[in-house]
This record gives sequence, C-alpha cells and structure tokens, in this order.
Amino acid sequence: MPDFSVSFQPQNKTVKVKKGATLLEAASKAQITINNLCGGDGICGRCKMIIKEGQVSGGVSSKLTREEIQQGFVLACQTFIKTDLVVEIPEETWAKEKIIADEDAERFRDFEQELLYKKEYTPSPLITKIYVELENPSLANNTADQQRACDAVRKKLKYRSSQMGLKIIKSLPEILRDFDYRITATVGLRRDIAEIMNIEGGDTSDKNYMVVVDMGTTTVVAHLVDANTIKTIDAKACFNSQGIYGREVTARMMAAERKGTSKLQKLLIEDINRLIGGLAEDNRIDLKNITAVVCAGNTAMGHFLLGLPTQNIRRSPYVPTSVAPPPLRAAEVGIEINSRGLLYSLPGISGWVGSDITAGILATEMNEKEELSLLVDIGTNGEIVIGNREWLVSCSASAGPALEGANEECGMRAEIGAIERVYVENGKILYKTIGEAPPRGICGSGIIDLLSVLLNEGIIDRSGKFIADSSEKLTSTNGLKSFFLTCGQESQNKKPIFITESDIENVITAKAAIFAAMKILVERLDLSFDDIKHFYIAGAFGNYINIENAINIGLIPAVPKDKIEFVGNTSIRGAKIVAFYKQALYKIDKIRENTTYYDLMGADDYIEEFKKAMFLPHTDIEIFHRRQ
Amino acid sequence: MPDFSVSFQPQNKTVKVKKGATLLEAASKAQITINNLCGGDGICGRCKMIIKEGQVSGGVSSKLTREEIQQGFVLACQTFIKTDLVVEIPEETWAKEKIIADEDAERFRDFEQELLYKKEYTPSPLITKIYVELENPSLANNTADQQRACDAVRKKLKYRSSQMGLKIIKSLPEILRDFDYRITATVGLRRDIAEIMNIEGGDTSDKNYMVVVDMGTTTVVAHLVDANTIKTIDAKACFNSQGIYGREVTARMMAAERKGTSKLQKLLIEDINRLIGGLAEDNRIDLKNITAVVCAGNTAMGHFLLGLPTQNIRRSPYVPTSVAPPPLRAAEVGIEINSRGLLYSLPGISGWVGSDITAGILATEMNEKEELSLLVDIGTNGEIVIGNREWLVSCSASAGPALEGANEECGMRAEIGAIERVYVENGKILYKTIGEAPPRGICGSGIIDLLSVLLNEGIIDRSGKFIADSSEKLTSTNGLKSFFLTCGQESQNKKPIFITESDIENVITAKAAIFAAMKILVERLDLSFDDIKHFYIAGAFGNYINIENAINIGLIPAVPKDKIEFVGNTSIRGAKIVAFYKQALYKIDKIRENTTYYDLMGADDYIEEFKKAMFLPHTDIEIFHRRQ
Repeated sequence: MPDFSVSFQPQNKTVKVKKGATLLEAASKAQITINNLCGGDGICGRCKMIIKEGQVSGGVSSKLTREEIQQGFVLACQTFIKTDLVVEIPEETWAKEKIIADEDAERFRDFEQELLYKKEYTPSPLITKIYVELENPSLANNTADQQRACDAVRKKLKYRSSQMGLKIIKSLPEILRDFDYRITATVGLRRDIAEIMNIEGGDTSDKNYMVVVDMGTTTVVAHLVDANTIKTIDAKACFNSQGIYGREVTARMMAAERKGTSKLQKLLIEDINRLIGGLAEDNRIDLKNITAVVCAGNTAMGHFLLGLPTQNIRRSPYVPTSVAPPPLRAAEVGIEINSRGLLYSLPGISGWVGSDITAGILATEMNEKEELSLLVDIGTNGEIVIGNREWLVSCSASAGPALEGANEECGMRAEIGAIERVYVENGKILYKTIGEAPPRGICGSGIIDLLSVLLNEGIIDRSGKFIADSSEKLTSTNGLKSFFLTCGQESQNKKPIFITESDIENVITAKAAIFAAMKILVERLDLSFDDIKHFYIAGAFGNYINIENAINIGLIPAVPKDKIEFVGNTSIRGAKIVAFYKQALYKIDKIRENTTYYDLMGADDYIEEFKKAMFLPHTDIEIFHRRQ
Repeated sequence: MPDFSVSFQPQNKTVKVKKGATLLEAASKAQITINNLCGGDGICGRCKMIIKEGQVSGGVSSKLTREEIQQGFVLACQTFIKTDLVVEIPEETWAKEKIIADEDAERFRDFEQELLYKKEYTPSPLITKIYVELENPSLANNTADQQRACDAVRKKLKYRSSQMGLKIIKSLPEILRDFDYRITATVGLRRDIAEIMNIEGGDTSDKNYMVVVDMGTTTVVAHLVDANTIKTIDAKACFNSQGIYGREVTARMMAAERKGTSKLQKLLIEDINRLIGGLAEDNRIDLKNITAVVCAGNTAMGHFLLGLPTQNIRRSPYVPTSVAPPPLRAAEVGIEINSRGLLYSLPGISGWVGSDITAGILATEMNEKEELSLLVDIGTNGEIVIGNREWLVSCSASAGPALEGANEECGMRAEIGAIERVYVENGKILYKTIGEAPPRGICGSGIIDLLSVLLNEGIIDRSGKFIADSSEKLTSTNGLKSFFLTCGQESQNKKPIFITESDIENVITAKAAIFAAMKILVERLDLSFDDIKHFYIAGAFGNYINIENAINIGLIPAVPKDKIEFVGNTSIRGAKIVAFYKQALYKIDKIRENTTYYDLMGADDYIEEFKKAMFLPHTDIEIFHRRQ
C-alpha cells in the first residue's frame, strides 16, 4: 500500500500514513493532541479540521454545519485519507498544552500528606539509595569486590541477602578503585530479594526520586515524589492518547486485537514518558535519578502498560493475562528513567477490577477496619468494593466518561475555566468556574449540579427529558434540545455552553450503572446501605462534588453526610503508599488475594437494578428519602 | 592497519587478520585447533606450519631443524604475518578432532553414580520440568492466566512463591488455550525464588537435560546429564582454546588486560558451546531441552566465563571481582541452550581458590565429617584444602600443566595411545598405553611413573639431572639431554617418545609447588600429615596414578595407602551434585563462606618449603619414609 504524506498547519508537521488511515490517526502520529472526547466515534464533533489540499473520503457528519462543510471542514475521526494532504487544524480543535498540572493533586495535597503520615510504620521507600564506605582490601581482607559491596549493603540495610546483576558486577572494580571504596548503592526490592540495581561512585544518596502513575482510561496522572523526604514534588496529567481508539477500554481492547497490543502500549508509554519528562524537566531532575515507577489503573491499562494480550478480558469468562505481574526493568517496556530502574505495576483483582481499586483499598485502609466500608471509584469504569478486615468483595460497572466531563458536547476536565458549580439563587440558575475564569465548559461536579438543578427547577423530568416551555434557556435545533447555561457572550471563546438531552441521558446511564452496581453488591451480601459505616467516594472530580445534588440525581444513596468521605484519586494515593512503604507491596498483594470479585456483566439482577436506576433519582424514590 | 588474508591448507580456510597478528592467532580465528601445549611461548614446538606463499617475520626457533627451516617450516606462535599468506598445516600439527570423549569420566562413572546416590536427600534437580493440568476458566473461576499457572506450579512443587518473566506471561493466553490448559512448566531456582523459566504446551516433562562443565585451565570438560533420571548421559572434553594466550591463567589475565576480557571470554564460551553442541548432537537432544549449565573452575576461568575484569586477581592483594556471581540466563554470556536456560557459575573462595575446590569439598563431603580431611586438586593450578565440619582452610600453588602431560615435549592428555604406566621388569624399563594402542605420547600418570623409575634406576639424580652414561637410552643433542622411552619404530607416527631434562625440571617444579603448599598448610594449622584421616587426590589423571611412585618423587607425603582416595574430577562431580540436588546450591555457598583462604604467594615459609621440595623426593627424605 502506498504511503500518503499529510501536512498539518499551523504545527507545520508532516507524517507518512498508510492508505485507509483516518485523519485523526495521522494527527496522533504527528503527536498533535486533539481535544476530542468520544474516541473517534464521530459523536463529540471535537476533531474538526479543514482540508486545504488533497482528497479524502468519509460521510458527512451532523456535527458540521452547511457552512463548515462548504469551507472544507471534516471530522478527523470520520475522514479517510485518499491522497497526500495539507490540513489546517483550527485552534479550538488543537489542544495546545498536552500536559497539564494535575490540579486535583493540588486540592488533595494536604489531605494526602496527612493520610500518608498516619501510617503506623516508618517510611521505607521501595527503592533506597544508601552510601557506604567499604573497607579497603588488604591481604588480610581480600574479599571479592561484589561480595565486599553486597555484604556492606546487606549489613547496613539489615537484609538477609542482596544481589546484583552482571553489568554492575562488571563495573565494580573500576568504580570501587576510582572512588576509594566509597559508593552509593541503589537498592530495590524485587520479589523477596534486595537487588542492588545500581552502584555509583561517591555519595549520591540524596537524589532518589520515583514517579507514581494513575493510568486512567481518560486521563493519565503522574506524580513525582522524593523517596528521601517522602514528599510529592509535582504532579502532571494528560489525556490518555489511546483515546483515538475509543472512549472505553472495550473499544481499545478491540483495537488491540485488530492492530496489535503494541500500538496501544506505545501510546500509553509515550504518555507516561512525556509526563515523566515534563516532571523531570520542570523540577531539574536527571532521569537517571528516577529509580522506579509505580503504576496503578484498571486491568486493561495494566495490560497495555506491559503489552499483555487483552482479548480474553472482554470475552466471557473474562480472564485477564495477569493481575499481578512481576516487577520489571522500566526500560523493558520503554519507560525512560534510570536504565536499571524498576517498574511496579500494582496487582489488581480481576479483568474488570484493577489495581486502582486495590490501591484505593490500601489508601482508605478499609481492609484494616472492623466496621464495614464501601469504596466507589467513579471513573470511566465505576468500581465498587465493600468489606472490612475480614473480607472484601468487589464489582465493576461500565459508566462511560460522562461523569468526568468527557462525554458531553461542552464537557471538560476539572481545569481553570470549567464550570464546577451550578446553583439557584433568587430563582436564577447561576454557575461558578474553577479559578473564577471565563467559562470554557462543564466538568463532572458541574454536570451533577446542573442535572440536580434542572430536576429541581422542573426543566427536566425524572427520565431526564426536557419539559417543553419550562425555561427560556431551552432551545431546540434540528430536533436537538439543549439547555443553555450561557449563550457565549461571557465564555472564553464566545461559544455557548449548554447541555443536550443526549448528554443528560449519558449522565443518567453513568450514574445508573454505578448506583445499580452498589445496590446489587449490598443486596447480594445481605446488607443495606445503613450497615456501611464509611462511604468512600473516589474519582477525579474529587472533593468538589455536592453531596445533596449527587443524592438528588441518584448517583449515591441517601446516607448520612458524616459517613461520606471524598477521597480523591485513591489510585495514585495507594500507589504512592507502596512507593513510600515497601511493606505495602505485600499488603496490596494480600488485598488482591483476599478480595472476591462478583461479575455483574449480564447478570439478571443487575440489569433489573440498572433499569430502575435510569430515573432521577430512581424508580424507588424511598431510597433517597431516608436522610438524617 | 591493513588486513592480511591468510589461507590454510588442507583445511581450505581463509581469514582476515590485522598486521602484527601471529600465525597461531590466525589459525585460532579460522577455528583450526592446533596441538600446541605451551600457549604460544615457543617452548613446545608443536605449532609447526609451512609458509607456501607470502612473507612473515619472527626469530628462528631451536625447535626446528635446519632441514625444516629450509622447507619453510615456522612455529606459528612465533611468526608474525607481514603479507597475505598461503600456509600448509602438517597433519601432526593439526588436531583433527577438537572434541574428544572425556575418558576420565568413563573411568569414574561407577564411582560417581555411587557417590551421587549415597546422599541422604532425594534428588531434586536445580531445574525441574513439571506437567500440570489447569482447571479450565469459568465465571466461577476466572483467575488470570499467569496466576492460574503460577498457583498450580507452586502447589505442585510446594514452593512459597513462584514467578515468571514478561515474555512468558505474554505467551500464556495462546499456549493455555491451544493446549487445553495442559502445560509443562520449566522451573528453576534463581536466588530464593522458584522461577518459571518456560511454559510449553502439553507434556514435555520427560525432556529435561543439563550440562555440567569443569572449566580447567588446560582442559574443558562437559557432561550431559538427564535431570529426570539423575544420570550422566555422555561426557566430552577439549583443550581450553584460551591456550593461545598462555599455559597459565596469569598469562591469560595479562592478555585479557591487553586485548580485552571479551576475547578470552569468547574462546571459553565457544569451547563450551562446541562441547554442548557435540553432546546434544551425538545424543539427539534438542538444545532447547537443555535447561541449565552448571560451571565450576578456578576463579580466573569463572571470571572469563562471565566476562568479569580479572586485573586485580593477579595483583596484591589479589581481589577478584566476584566469587559468587548470581545465576544468569545462559544466553546473556552467549551459551547456546534453551533461550531462557540458566547458567550457574558456582561460588569460589578467593582469587586463587575457585569453585573447582568448593565443588571438590562438596563432592568429598569433607565439610560434613568430624575427622580431618585434606583435598588436593592437581591441575595447572594446585589447590589444597584441609578441614572438617568445623572449619576449612585452603591455599593454592601454581604448578603449571606438567602433571597433566601438557608441558612436555612428548606430553599428551590421558587418551588412547597415551603412555599411562612406566615400570621395570627384569631390569628393563617398559610401558603400557591407554587402550594398548601404539604410543603417541606420555600422559600425567606415565610421567610420574617415569620420573620414579628414572630415579630408582639411577638414571637421574635427586635434583632431576641425568646421570651420565647411566643408560643407553640417554642421548644428548646440542646439549639437550633426553631419555628415550621408544625410538619411534613402535610409535604411532614413527616419532620417538622421550623426556628431556627440562621436562623433568618442570615436573619437579610442579610437584614441589603442590607438596610445599600442602606442607605449609599442615604446619600453619599446627598439624602433621598423620592427623589427616582422609587424603583425597583429585585431578584429571585420576585413578591411574601409582601411589608409591607419587610418594617416591615427593608429590604426596608418605601416608598409609588406605588413607588415600583418588577422587577424579571433583570439580565436575561437585557441579553435578548441585545440578541434581538443589539444596547443594545453599550447601556450596555455605562452604564458600566458611572456607578461609591462606595466601602463600611470596610468603617466606612457602618459598623455603618450595626450595626444599625441589628434590626427589625432598631434601628431608624422612617425610617419605614413614610408610606403614
């Protein structure tokens, strides 16, 4: 097949692609990040581009106006390349800054420090750097270089045994003699053995950094931590570049089967490398001083990270390739840190309950409490676990990214300019943006508020449909009904910010999937929500969710407010605990072993419960009226 | 520097070499094995070649006759290449069969089986292949592939934990499903973890082979063993190709510093691969079913095997790079067995007491006995260890290869045609060859006999010099005195077989070095030879040494015959015990830790003792007259 050349303006980047590739794939290859949300399904209409020269094929999208079509606009994800092309990417399509600060991390910073420090044990990072001064050899003590170094490290760290690989052994004679037997050993825990991963001359023990990654389906978050001070230095996030293959992991697994897992792996690894590179650069840290990466995420992401086959995860009986892969050299999968640095991919529970949940259990310590807790992690996939120190049961529900602000016409991540609050004052529907900036879109917490307000104000009915003539901000174009929060005069790009009936349906589907899973799990365990003493809500929207509104739309049951705790991104927090306390590596593996998985996919009781939850708040209103 | 082309006849092989290379190096590059013994020092005169075309430089050797020089004969090791060459290699120079059967192994076969079986524990090979039938996945049991396989293996083998690498994890989904969840796992012990090194579909557990190698300075021996039946299948040996860089390890370490360790490593690895390849081919075994290689040898060889720097071994305070390297993938150093097969390089004690000795201690079990034992391993380097289950002390003496038949004009390995016995009958000096074949040379045991006979018959004096007119078989050519065992009419190649005064001096030096070391060790420990209850003599000449003759020339002290046990190649036997009993891996490491090393190099008492031992049998004849 011939290659076509596609040039993108104004980035001035040209790539070669095969016939049959979409314009979106070409943009991905050119490493141009597009603000698309729907993952190439032609739904979000965010990937508009203008064909300046050349021929393309593909259907006409209803997301484009007649004027746009006449001007050469296409949806990149629906457009196939037929000849060499010159393409213009409008500014609104082009995500100028791929990597952004993880503001969620900022919000949780104090909280996180507190949680990390309340552990009973003293910090003991997964990777330690220790400085040792060896005895100089003499006829009375002519122990071999390797044994001299290993013994000294073992004694200092009080390990039973320590080992090092061939490359380091080979380098020892020179390093020891050049630095007068004063060395710094980088020691990692690999399986049960303390492994001396690196030997440097002199004292470099003050430079020991790790990166902790939450591999979300929608967003990849990375935190740079200092293993010596047990502190988070910086946090960055980016959209998961795999998005071009679908919004949900199922679509990506299908893409992996068609195109090879390595394609998906590459995109994820590139995201992680970009985040690590950005964190290192901004904080002037040499990559060689980053000694480990600890990753958590759903099981499919865990598979993509390592390039493991995913095809059996999405087919009954949903068998993953591995839920507890061994620690590897980060370099083995292409992660760019110290060349001998380790990659820990935390253990998960099943094909649909990943290490984000085991990390969440570790972070909330629900596995150590006598009383019952429920942890719900609201992401693109909703995962729920109930239990205590005796037992843990988990399940999963496919919610889609609507509650992350990533599945609506005007949805966006919780960044500056995102509408994060919607409320009624003096009969008027008002809103508040993050950073008090001009509004750019609505993020998850804003969407929950908005639905609750629309319901309370009688603008939508309990099934989420607009009630005709209920508000002057309600419009209907081509049969598409929308409610306008702002008409554009005050928004950043002068574009209106609105919610469509279809957006509302997506939100209801998402909340119904999660609520139904919670309810089924409680019922299957012969419990009621009243038996749960701690109700942990995790997810990227975090602290800023309005509990009353969440109960009002039926996302969470009407439990007393003081039982509810917003715990933010517990995936990254749990991973950070492992990075800082190596004992936690055993703990999280115990959690994995002790957590049962209930599969709800296709279960009759779940489908029934899901249907009941497709109302606002629920067909059984009583569940949401027992608040104290 | 320009390359020269050197063509060898009759092999019809052509190689390119750099200016300054010797003809011997060119032959090595062409993989033509030369029967040389002296390691390129111009001493043995075995590497004669004829220059047919082209120019060379280099001195004239006294090893060549005037006629030979006129015909274009040169010594390859002393000849530098100046132009393109055509070279003829006479048949006597060219070792047609590089790999030979290890006949020493044949002789010790019964003995070895007995020793291996008298262990108190049941066999448990270092690498196990087990067949498991996994439960097919269902919704009730949808454990991940890796955990399903690891759990089953762990349970069957009763290990605490088991792990597998990324490549195998990746291959699991396909193998499990293609073979209906019936698999064979190859499980190795690596550090303290049971590592699943390989997974194959179906039941292949009956094919599990290992190779055990003794890396001698002069000879490399490899035995092919069946890990299931705990039996030796075949044994082969070859001269160590590193010989072109010197007879003794010191010269080779110097070469490694000049030319890079990897050159020496490559030669050793090629020898090992040739032996393994030959063993596999002859026994119709697929290399992929060879799961491990266990190597023992002196510390320098252990370093060459792994490519470790050797420069500090030969300089005070004689510090090796490593005496206990970790198990590695054999492929990491280029050994060709199963691509994930392991290489165990057994632990040694110091720079001059290697894993051949720890293996010897393991094989003789002297570390488990209450009474005192002395083990002397007579190789190119003589190593001695004295001790019991409480303590072990070792030392080393540089003997040279004279006692292996590899340092004499007519010396040879103990192969068919080697004179292995020399004795006097009816006043005549007679001999016996291995296999009753026409004589080709003298091997180690024959040389010891010959010296003893020459001494008894008054043909040499106590300092090893020929006594004039003492025998009609004594000749003197150009001042070089020789004793002729046969004048050539009955020898295989019609060449005479003789011993020179200089040969005798080499043998005396060798025996003096070894005896002095034994004596010093005994004295430093405030012991006498009478305190030793077991006197183990190890070495390639093995069973066939005549004790009385050995005592007569002063190689071993005059201890009662029933205390002396010839134990053959304990290096390979100890390695085999490790291969067959994985507990022995811990045992040999304990031996390493518990054995003290006395360095004799340059010690005044050693030099004094060595001088005294430079007589036949010794200046102090009394030591050799206290026999019972």
